[in-house]
Order: sequence, then structure tokens, then C-alpha cells
Amino acid sequence: MTNIDVLNELAKRRGFFFSANDSYGGLAGFYAYGPMGAALKSNIENSWRTKFVIEEGHFEISTPTISPSPVFKASGHLDGFDDLLITCSTCEISYRADHLLGSQHTLLQSSDVSAKEFKKLLSKYSLTCPSCKNTLDDSTLQEFNLMFATKVGPGSQTPGYLRPETAQGIFVEFPRLSDYARGKLPFGVAQIGTSYRNEISPRKGLTRLREFTQAELELFIHPTDLGPEITPTTTKLPLYSVSQQESNGDIEFVTPTEAIDENIIENRWLAYYLELSTNWYDSIGIDLTRFRYRQHMPSELAHYASDCWDAEVEIDGDWIEITGFAHRGNYDLSKHNTHSSADFTMFIPLDEPQEKLQTNLNPDMGYFGPTFGKLTPEILSKIDEMASEDSTIFDSPELSVEIDGTTHSIPSEYLHPTTEKITVTGERILPHVIEPSFGIDRIIYSILAHTFHEDTIDGEARSLLSIPSSISPIFVGVFPLLTRDGLDTVSQDIASNLRTSGLSVLYDESGSIGKRYRRQDEVGTPFCVTVDHQYFEDQTVTLRERNSAMQIRIDVDSLSTILESLRNGSSIFSDLK
Amino acid sequence: MTNIDVLNELAKRRGFFFSANDSYGGLAGFYAYGPMGAALKSNIENSWRTKFVIEEGHFEISTPTISPSPVFKASGHLDGFDDLLITCSTCEISYRADHLLGSQHTLLQSSDVSAKEFKKLLSKYSLTCPSCKNTLDDSTLQEFNLMFATKVGPGSQTPGYLRPETAQGIFVEFPRLSDYARGKLPFGVAQIGTSYRNEISPRKGLTRLREFTQAELELFIHPTDLGPEITPTTTKLPLYSVSQQESNGDIEFVTPTEAIDENIIENRWLAYYLELSTNWYDSIGIDLTRFRYRQHMPSELAHYASDCWDAEVEIDGDWIEITGFAHRGNYDLSKHNTHSSADFTMFIPLDEPQEKLQTNLNPDMGYFGPTFGKLTPEILSKIDEMASEDSTIFDSPELSVEIDGTTHSIPSEYLHPTTEKITVTGERILPHVIEPSFGIDRIIYSILAHTFHEDTIDGEARSLLSIPSSISPIFVGVFPLLTRDGLDTVSQDIASNLRTSGLSVLYDESGSIGKRYRRQDEVGTPFCVTVDHQYFEDQTVTLRERNSAMQIRIDVDSLSTILESLRNGSSIFSDLK
Repeated sequence: MTNIDVLNELAKRRGFFFSANDSYGGLAGFYAYGPMGAALKSNIENSWRTKFVIEEGHFEISTPTISPSPVFKASGHLDGFDDLLITCSTCEISYRADHLLGSQHTLLQSSDVSAKEFKKLLSKYSLTCPSCKNTLDDSTLQEFNLMFATKVGPGSQTPGYLRPETAQGIFVEFPRLSDYARGKLPFGVAQIGTSYRNEISPRKGLTRLREFTQAELELFIHPTDLGPEITPTTTKLPLYSVSQQESNGDIEFVTPTEAIDENIIENRWLAYYLELSTNWYDSIGIDLTRFRYRQHMPSELAHYASDCWDAEVEIDGDWIEITGFAHRGNYDLSKHNTHSSADFTMFIPLDEPQEKLQTNLNPDMGYFGPTFGKLTPEILSKIDEMASEDSTIFDSPELSVEIDGTTHSIPSEYLHPTTEKITVTGERILPHVIEPSFGIDRIIYSILAHTFHEDTIDGEARSLLSIPSSISPIFVGVFPLLTRDGLDTVSQDIASNLRTSGLSVLYDESGSIGKRYRRQDEVGTPFCVTVDHQYFEDQTVTLRERNSAMQIRIDVDSLSTILESLRNGSSIFSDLK
Repeated sequence: MTNIDVLNELAKRRGFFFSANDSYGGLAGFYAYGPMGAALKSNIENSWRTKFVIEEGHFEISTPTISPSPVFKASGHLDGFDDLLITCSTCEISYRADHLLGSQHTLLQSSDVSAKEFKKLLSKYSLTCPSCKNTLDDSTLQEFNLMFATKVGPGSQTPGYLRPETAQGIFVEFPRLSDYARGKLPFGVAQIGTSYRNEISPRKGLTRLREFTQAELELFIHPTDLGPEITPTTTKLPLYSVSQQESNGDIEFVTPTEAIDENIIENRWLAYYLELSTNWYDSIGIDLTRFRYRQHMPSELAHYASDCWDAEVEIDGDWIEITGFAHRGNYDLSKHNTHSSADFTMFIPLDEPQEKLQTNLNPDMGYFGPTFGKLTPEILSKIDEMASEDSTIFDSPELSVEIDGTTHSIPSEYLHPTTEKITVTGERILPHVIEPSFGIDRIIYSILAHTFHEDTIDGEARSLLSIPSSISPIFVGVFPLLTRDGLDTVSQDIASNLRTSGLSVLYDESGSIGKRYRRQDEVGTPFCVTVDHQYFEDQTVTLRERNSAMQIRIDVDSLSTILESLRNGSSIFSDLK
């Protein structure tokens, strides 16, 4: 077994994660978190919330997972959120076309091949069905939308979709959110929640799920905002830029300020979030020596994004994306501004009101009506727009106006422009968006993969997860040496007291002490307390640390204070004695 | 406007909750939590987790919201989770039949009227359509399943459903969970998450949503477990028992031990959870003078439940259920045990192995085959069962065996029973379940309704939410008196320092100080810090408390320590000076 197989077996056996509904045969792409996994997950989510929402002074919101179709029509998910599905005409098994290309012809791997292009590739490369080995020449190709559809309510049964990302819930509520932000930019809005993608081929484990958890932050900025001043630090970002990828180069380790100064990262906000995230990943147990930020190649960049970096971790030789950092421009807000009845712009007041000349048209309708008919309003509004950019356009005898590809010539004499002085107090703008989007399930998987070790303690092999104590599922195990002589009741009282101080405690009295330590090592519990007969002499118990397997004796009265100081980092175990 | 209208307006204006997707006309039954609501919600969820999971030493798990249909076939939701839908033949508007009965004939209100019974009531009471006022005699009636359906994967498109409760996710994983509990009863498993019900008529606000959040705890107990010893306390439970409801009596205020001793509550586990919950509700701001536990009448008790109590709060004269406490017996586990391929029983070892006489049948198949045909195995297994309960049954010449309502007479002489001595080390049992099931959205709504006040401070009217500081969306507001003289940068530094100590901080510099206080009062922020010019003389700032509107000056260096002690309850504001 590889380390990953060992880890997956451990995850199921010890309650981190497992395929859900196994008693009914399960359903691919749906996983459940057991007691250890769910505790780890909620600790990670709370840690993210502290770091990216509370400490940054941002908002968090929580929007429904089901939304009506107009929202996804506007966002583009209803029409464009597809994977190309190829179905073998012989065995009728379906595959994702890009995966098929990728597995058989690695150079062709791409997630954006059209049906037409793929048809050509099919015969050019004589692709065969991985299952029945027959030719795929007669296979059927279809665009398969990745959203889960449902119907809402009785009667008309309004179509609804399960959200494919939490971000749209933020964008669609933007008019209200900008009110809450009291009209000031920049402001950030986060959401932690479930998203859904009806994947054609979910992977085993947590790396490609049909139901998964995202933690997304949308930072709304002024279009001209190039980011905050970056305070120079020694944090090294492991960057794998487009130019390094193109030249088959290496990861470059640079500070955020160097990355900006050397134009590796263009927008300072992106550099800011890469630094913040690096520190966070480090604090939750991601091994930074198996980690990089890979810039999207121009060909893989989403059409709305001007720059994008993926945080990737190495697991068993593969690089897996755990977070995307994208500059989305005003793509999302402009879509909703166009498709909905609401106003998604913000009014940004100028520091000082400005005087401006405004041109008003007084068109001769006796000419425009008969000449342009219904096109007239559109033509006049276009001229209005041209005039606001350049007030001298009426100096020439004729104006050229293009409507839907046709150029119309308009004699200036019929427009009778007049000018007036107006006071401009601000401007309406569509904010731009910087989006760090975290995949919580993949982060959980990465933490387990990166903290999993096997070593030998006192001549005995053990496996352990060196999960940081700030997020470990259980903080302390409490064991009576024996289940008699009152050791068990004393231990239960200690466990109960520690729980009341808000610590996550596991009480265990079964098996040898060695076995109980191994069980806790294996789920990443950083500390264990054992109560033996010496307790009755001097009220001390032993405190054992996971990584070193070292033990010290401490007074039971100071136990909760010491454990709390270990948890909040104000003391470390090796200093205790 | 009633207080509730004022509250709903406040909720939307200040970012607690609002109808989602308003820019696209919204969708009934789907609400979004704004910044204040989402922070309140996650604080409440964490408080619940601490109280009902961590301090109790239980497990929490997290299972998918989508599950395949066999799970809901087994649980009974696919066939029985319906509301009766009546559609007017004139205007084609649909209603929930029980609501229609309830609104027009209050005495008939029931959630369990069959289509046949309803047809009779229609003509008996000449019910009319609330919308077009025409008779409903020709209306159509149909059972409308309340689960949202979807399809999973390409090709065969497996049917899946969005879970109507988080509990099934726990029951269906029971075989694994009992392993994690190392085979010992009792043990509790909790889940906090989204559930879905395709309500025919969702209500405005948070009281009947189509997508909502539950926090459910399933306590698995031995069938003979009548609950823990209840330590006598002074907590008074406001009980509205079946007998008090039947006699139009009052709520009785009794301690948990009195409730058990006087047989008002039968199972001590229910009494235990009612007490735990009462203390929790109190700590999160539910007004216990507008609160009761109402026992289910025998007619409304779910067929699987032997006893059920609802926690109800009074809002604007209505009693609203916020939590159900049910004794579910072994209903759920036995359903999954029968329908799935897995074993949902637990092996409970006896303290001492026991010797037992076992009866084996040696039936004369020459008689049984021709006489009972295919029924033979079932008849013999029934006799086996009868013999294990009473070994003397073979003493009488004939046995009566009932199969599907038909009684068969079996002459004992054809059975040839023999006995052997066996050693029994334990028994396989299906655990019973005690379930406290909390509706988080309704709890949020109740907290807002119960903490909302209007009063007068310094001759000025204000509205405030006296939300307990342990769960308030914002813990402290930080304001510069003016945005000049460096007061703003000092304030921003203070805000940023407090955030680093993990406090939820809002920085606000716009409007008069009075207005800023009012804004924070209205969202329930318990403390505000204002920085004025005196800071430059003695490094002190003012700290104001919400409820009393009292202010004290404190040293900026001790600010974070004082605020943390106020948050964890180790000091109270009135003692500070």
C-alpha cells in the first residue's frame, strides 16, 4: 500500500471520512465526515473565519444553496457550465471527453475542447473506449451541464438549481451588501458553505466530490485600486509563474514585495492574499515544502479573469489545487446588472465636486423619424455617449454611428447641440472583484496527507498525524491506568472538568495504555492525560505530548490552565519541565 | 406596525436576514443571512456545539445533503412525507389542505387528514377557495411529497433527494458509528446542517423555510435504559403536559426531578435534555417567561414516537416550535436494518456468560411440505421464536401460529423438539433513540424577537437588541470621535489589535457618535469604544455598555484584557468602576 492508501484506510477506520450511504451501496462523489473529520472540518472553518473574515474586518453572509434559474442564466452557469460527455456506442459507458484525451494523449489535455474539435481528434488519434476497447468513432457527444436541477413548489414547479459555487450568492445580493458597507470601497464579503457539481467522473476520496464545501471571499475594489501597500516581510512565496512554466523552469521563492517589484504578480491585492494564505496554510499543517502557487496559463484563464494563481499541494507526486486566487474584474456584477431589475453599481463621491460641460441634443425629429424610424432612440443615445467623451464631434459636418455592425451617416446640422454647466459630485461604477476561493475538503485531505507519519517509539511502530493542536479533532485524551481503585471515576471527573473549560476531550478506558496512546496518535490528539495510583498520594497525573511521546507529571489543579496555555500557544510543552 | 414588523424591517435594513435573490424577484421560502445574521448564526451553532456535543462528550458528524432514493424508501420519507395539496378547479391556485381547514374551521386543524376524509369535509363544510371564492367541490386533491428531487450523474441519472432532516444521515451511518463508539451504549451523535422541505406554502420570515438549518442530536441507548440519575436542581421546567392541555389547564413549573417523580415526563433522558436546553436557551437570550415545553397529544404523535415534547416560544401571541424532543424507539434503525444490506444491531456482552437451554426443531417434512407448502419456513421460524420465549409450548397437543392474520393449527407431534445447553455471552439489540432536534433559523428569529426593545436614552428614542454578548454578531464597536487629529489612525490601530485577539470588531467613523451608538444598539453590539482627544493626554478611551448606555474611561493597554474578561464572563461591566 502507498502512504495514501494507508491514509484512506485510516480515515475510514478512525472516522475522518468515508463514502456515504455505504449500507445502500453508496453514491459516487458523496462522502461523509465521521467524528474526527467533522471536528477537524469545523475547526478549520473557524480558523479560516478568524483569519480571513474577523481579523480582516470583513463580512460573512449565508445564502441559500438553491436559487432560481434566472440567477444562473445571468451568471453564465446555465449555458456555459458544461463538460463534454462522450458515450461509447458499444458499451454505453460515458466519459468526460477531456479526461479521455488526457489519459490517452497527455499533450492534448484541456478542459475546454468543443464537441466539433473533439470529433476531429477522435478519428485523428483513433481513440478507443477505455472500458470495451472498441473504437469511439460512432460515439455520441453532448454538453453535460454540471448543475444539479430541481423543482420548487407545487403547481408551476419553478426550476431551481443547486449552486455550483458560493460566490454567486454574494454577487446576487451585492446591492444590499454595498448598503451594509455604507457605500465605501474596498469591502470584503465571505461565505462558507456547501456547493454542488454533478461531476461526470468523481474521484475516490475528497479531491473531486459532487457535494463539497467552499470558503470564498469576494473583495470588492474600485476599478483603479491596484492594492494596498505591502509591508516588507520575510515570507517567501513559492511562485510558479507563467514564464517559468513556459520555460520549464523552477518554482521561485520570493517575498510579496519582490513579486510585485519584479512584476511576477501584477495586482498587489493578489500578493497580499497569497501572503496571508501562506501563513494560514502553515498554521494548519500544510507542508510548505510540498506547496506552490501556480499561475494560470493564458489558455486556461477563465474568460472573465485577468490573472489567476492556484495554491497547489503535492500529494503522492500529484499537484492538487486547494485554492484559486482570481482577479475577476467586473464580470459578475456587470452580468447581474444587465440581467436583473436591480442596480449593481455603486456611487463613489468625488473628494471635491467638479464642474463639467454637458452636451444636450435637440434633434430635428422631422428628419430622424422618417429617416431612421425605430432606430432613432438608439442612434441618438449613441451620439449622446460619443459627445460625453468628445464634445468637438459636432464640428465635422457628418457623424458616423455604428449600430449592430451597420454604419449610419448623420448630418450634424439636424442635431442642434446645446451645452450646459453641471456639477458632478461623484460617479457610478461597477466594482472589480478579487476572489480567494478555498476548497475545504481538499484542504482537509492535504492536511491529513502532509501530517501523516510512521515512526518508532520505544521499539514499537506507530502511525501519527501531527495535526497542529489549534485544529486537532480532539485536544486531549484522558485515561485511567486501570478501571478500578477509583481511577476511572477520578479520570471521568477530570475529563468532565476539562470539557467545561471548552476543551475537546476524549475519555478512553479500554485496552492497554500503550494502545490508547497509539489510538490518539493516529487521530492527531496532541496531548494525553493518564491517571495512575500516584494521584492518590500527590494529586498529580501524567501529561504526554504526541510528537515527542514525552511525559511529565503535573498537578491536577493546574491541568486545565496548562492545557489552555498549550492550546492558545502561550506556552509550549518542552518548556513545561 | 407591530413589533414584529419593526423587527423584520430592522432585520433587512441592518443585515440580519432577508428574502434571497430579490434582484430576480426572489423565491418563496428561501432566505439569506446578511453579515449580522450570519455572525449570529455561526455563534449560535458554536454555542450549541459546545453545550450539546463537546461538553457532553458526544460525536459530531457531517453527511451529504443529497442521498440516493433507497435511503428515503427505508426511512419512510419517499412514501409518507407528504402534504395533501388541494388545487382549485377555477383559479388553479394550490393550497395545503390542512391549512385551508385550519383557517376556515379552526377546530378541524390537523396535519394528518387523508384525501378521502378531506373530500367529505369539503362538501360537509362547503369550503371555498380563499383566492377566487368559488366552491372547492370540483377541486383536485393530491399527495405532494415534500422532498426536493434531483438526478445524479450522466447516463442512468440516479434519482437523489435533498434530505428533509439531518437525522437520517446519522441513522444510515450507524453501523460505522457504533464501531467508533467501540460498541458501548449510550453514545450520542450530532449533526448541524442544512435540510430541505419543498413546502407548499412557506411563511414570510424564518418560521417556515424551504431550506433551513437543523442541529440534531441522536442519543443511542439500550432499550431498557430509562435515563440517568437526575441531580436535583432548582431549574424550573415550564411544562404543558397532555393532561393540562386536555383539561385546558396551565403551564406547570416543575423541576426535572419533580417532573419524573410525578410521572409528567416518563423517560429521564427527556427530562435531562429539557433541563440542559432550558439553561442553553436562557444563555442565548430566549425569554423564559415566553417559553414552554408542550407535550404532543396522542393524536399528533408520530407513529414511531412514544413521547415527544416541543420547546415553544411566544412571539406576537403565537406559540412557535423551536425544538422537538422525541423518544423515537428503534424505529429508524429497524427500518434501515430491514431495507439495507448492513447490520444495524449492536452486540451487548453480558456481565457474566449465561448457560441457557435452546430448543431445536426436527420437523416432519413429510407432513409440513404437503400441508403448508411455501408457508413452512415462516411457520417453523415462528414456532422457534415461540419456543425461545416459552419452552413448555410443546406440552399441549396443538400449537396456534398466526401468519398474516390467519391462524394455523400445528399438531405438536410433527415437531420432534430436542434441547441443548448453550452459553450466551451477550445479545444483539437494536438501540433506541432519544432525539433533541433544534431548528436554528427559528431560534435566531426567537432571539431577535425576545431581545428587541425600544427605550429612551438621554431623552432620545432608540431600539436595541439585548443579545447576550457571548453570541452577539459584533462584540465591540470602535469609533474615533472625529476623523482628524490622528484620532482615526489611533482608532484603526485599536480595532486591528482587538481583532488579533479574536474579537469581532466593527470600526465606524461616519456620523455623530450618538448615531454610531444607536447603530450598534440596533444590531446588539454589547460594547463600544470611543477614542477622543483625552487619549493623547492619558492613553484612556471610553468604554460604553449597550443595555445601560453607561460609559467608563479605561486605559487602552488594559482594553483587550478587560473586553476578553467581559466576553468569557469572568467580569461584568457594572463592577468595572
